[in-house]
Amino acid sequence: MVSSTQFADGAVATADRQSATIQGLATPALLLDRDKLDRNLKRLRDRTAARGVVLRPHMKTAKSIDVARRAFPSGTGPITVSTLAEAEYFAGHGFTDMTYAVGLSPDSAQRAMALCKTGIDLKLLLDSAAQARALGAAGRAAAVRPSAFIEIDCDGHRGGLRADDPELLNVAREMAEAGVALAGILTHAGESYALSTPAALAAAAENERAVAVLAAETLRAAGHECPIVSVGSTPTAHFAENLAGVTEMRAGVYMFFDLVMHGVGVCATDDLAIAVLATVVGTKPEKGWILVDAGWMALSRDRGTAAQRVDQGYGLVCDLSGKPYPDLIVGQASQEHGVILVRPGSAATPPDLPVGSKVWILPNHACATASQHDVYNVISSGRHDIEARWPRIRGW
Amino acid sequence: MVSSTQFADGAVATADRQSATIQGLATPALLLDRDKLDRNLKRLRDRTAARGVVLRPHMKTAKSIDVARRAFPSGTGPITVSTLAEAEYFAGHGFTDMTYAVGLSPDSAQRAMALCKTGIDLKLLLDSAAQARALGAAGRAAAVRPSAFIEIDCDGHRGGLRADDPELLNVAREMAEAGVALAGILTHAGESYALSTPAALAAAAENERAVAVLAAETLRAAGHECPIVSVGSTPTAHFAENLAGVTEMRAGVYMFFDLVMHGVGVCATDDLAIAVLATVVGTKPEKGWILVDAGWMALSRDRGTAAQRVDQGYGLVCDLSGKPYPDLIVGQASQEHGVILVRPGSAATPPDLPVGSKVWILPNHACATASQHDVYNVISSGRHDIEARWPRIRGW
Repeated sequence: MVSSTQFADGAVATADRQSATIQGLATPALLLDRDKLDRNLKRLRDRTAARGVVLRPHMKTAKSIDVARRAFPSGTGPITVSTLAEAEYFAGHGFTDMTYAVGLSPDSAQRAMALCKTGIDLKLLLDSAAQARALGAAGRAAAVRPSAFIEIDCDGHRGGLRADDPELLNVAREMAEAGVALAGILTHAGESYALSTPAALAAAAENERAVAVLAAETLRAAGHECPIVSVGSTPTAHFAENLAGVTEMRAGVYMFFDLVMHGVGVCATDDLAIAVLATVVGTKPEKGWILVDAGWMALSRDRGTAAQRVDQGYGLVCDLSGKPYPDLIVGQASQEHGVILVRPGSAATPPDLPVGSKVWILPNHACATASQHDVYNVISSGRHDIEARWPRIRGW
Repeated sequence: MVSSTQFADGAVATADRQSATIQGLATPALLLDRDKLDRNLKRLRDRTAARGVVLRPHMKTAKSIDVARRAFPSGTGPITVSTLAEAEYFAGHGFTDMTYAVGLSPDSAQRAMALCKTGIDLKLLLDSAAQARALGAAGRAAAVRPSAFIEIDCDGHRGGLRADDPELLNVAREMAEAGVALAGILTHAGESYALSTPAALAAAAENERAVAVLAAETLRAAGHECPIVSVGSTPTAHFAENLAGVTEMRAGVYMFFDLVMHGVGVCATDDLAIAVLATVVGTKPEKGWILVDAGWMALSRDRGTAAQRVDQGYGLVCDLSGKPYPDLIVGQASQEHGVILVRPGSAATPPDLPVGSKVWILPNHACATASQHDVYNVISSGRHDIEARWPRIRGW
């Protein structure tokens, strides 16, 4: 850490965007601890392997070929994507088995077919007969056979049909008539993010499983093949015990974890693999404020912990070893300024962090914070050398 | 708008990222109405000109040379920037008079001096003697004379010294001793964003002015030249009447405006110059939900209207002419999905928007929403042709 004396003496650090160490990195910057990443990846890989289900990681959090390669140490594998830009990017890097887990529109169907035409097995998502017909038309126009999941709603969170909705069989019929292969059913326990006890998480996981299996059995009983039964959210993936009838699991944020997942109870703060490196640019001792050059542009506007038991503000502040200071959070954020303060109600005293000091800030929501940056500065646990720079993609 | 029949017939629109019209644009995409932009730019330009103060637009919202050029129809002019990446970008496009309005660190001082060395008049910001000494050292190392504002705190919002803080003169003395030119004083009425009545806004503007002038007069009385007295925030810039003693005004979001500024009372929704174009990808009639392919990745996580009288969710939904549907908002957002619904408590009925339909979404916070995109798709009011594509920059 840059000491007060060093600063008062006018010593000017050598900061740039290609520095070999954290200390010299221009801030704000996104750090990625490769050891924690690998540990998180292995945890869910082992968990799903032990239960005999395929893990189809969601690349919406990492958006990086380098991270994807660590998720599949021995080659490529099945992945989930959140944009067609991701699908095109990962296809360009050798990934061929993908699910685009956003409901399709006529326009996205057409663009997806162009990718399928190159030999990519890109499975789409729909929940209506009109979408099935549109996808069929896009497939015919491109002379490829489209493949899609029917989205099932397991908890009222977003889109999809209820497993007992008579429309389910109608959509499957329309798919068959339109020449769209039924990849299977897909559901996402999005409401699990609002839970915080092991029992509630286990129940959400069991509900997700049961609803998915019911939908698949309904389809099969009507004569439709339903090869894939895909479930997943990071919380349910880590709390599901019985996965009977499920064939694959999807999760994304588990790679990095974040303070929201910590609040849900899925990980420890020490598991968080990404952090924003920031520099102190001012202090307001009379208010107990420490101002840093990481505002919401670097941290994101995500306040996901505001609804949890412990509100982490815009992030939890750590020293350069990644150890959290007691109750020290980014309490306010404007575009390029963060205000670090002791959590309201805490008796902790803020550390002495003069202008020029550097801190790590653990993010509320890894998907949102990472998306504010174009590159991961990769380190090993406990070390300050920048070992690699991994680019991220963005856009649609 | 894509009609239901069109979709059910399987007609596939021609969507790409280089489409000539809104209808064919791949979604989500950022739209910019050039006529509204010009109207907003002229409004504040005329207002400041009438009061004899320099307008120094803050480029943190637009981050685009094309927008900057429209702010200065007859050449370049003084601008404010929020990152050194912006400073370097605008310097590369011929802008020479800039203020970097974030408190400096030893690292940023060094990088700023490299830019000054190329002949750019980049004024920095500080509020402590330690920063003054560090900047002096950076200037000596680069063999340039640095110039900086002393930041004044007018409303407790963020950084800066109170105008009556004895430290003010000490910092000015340290600057002189360190060889740092005093550009003047700079203050920002950030708390004005929380106001919503003309009287309160006018009072905030007058407070901002009075504090700035007091600080400048204190410095001058002690023998320091204080050439620039810089104030500004979009709300106070539009409500200030008396600007005696002020020499320049800064504002950024006024170029585009947004729903937060509408809630503050600075603009009408019809003044909002940017919107996110989205496509309907699903419906949940039983819940009154319309799902679109614009989630927080396209809209940002900003919920700035949540604290205002009218909570606009993640944005106000409009038809393709930019006219808001009654009480229709994006009520929920996940990464790539938005849930459109009628504002709770409203008796309005949601419009019939089948899958494939396109809508505009007006943003809560223009700075945050625009930053989620790499390009502005530029249109004229009332027209659907994409007349230009203006790139944005990001990063630090």
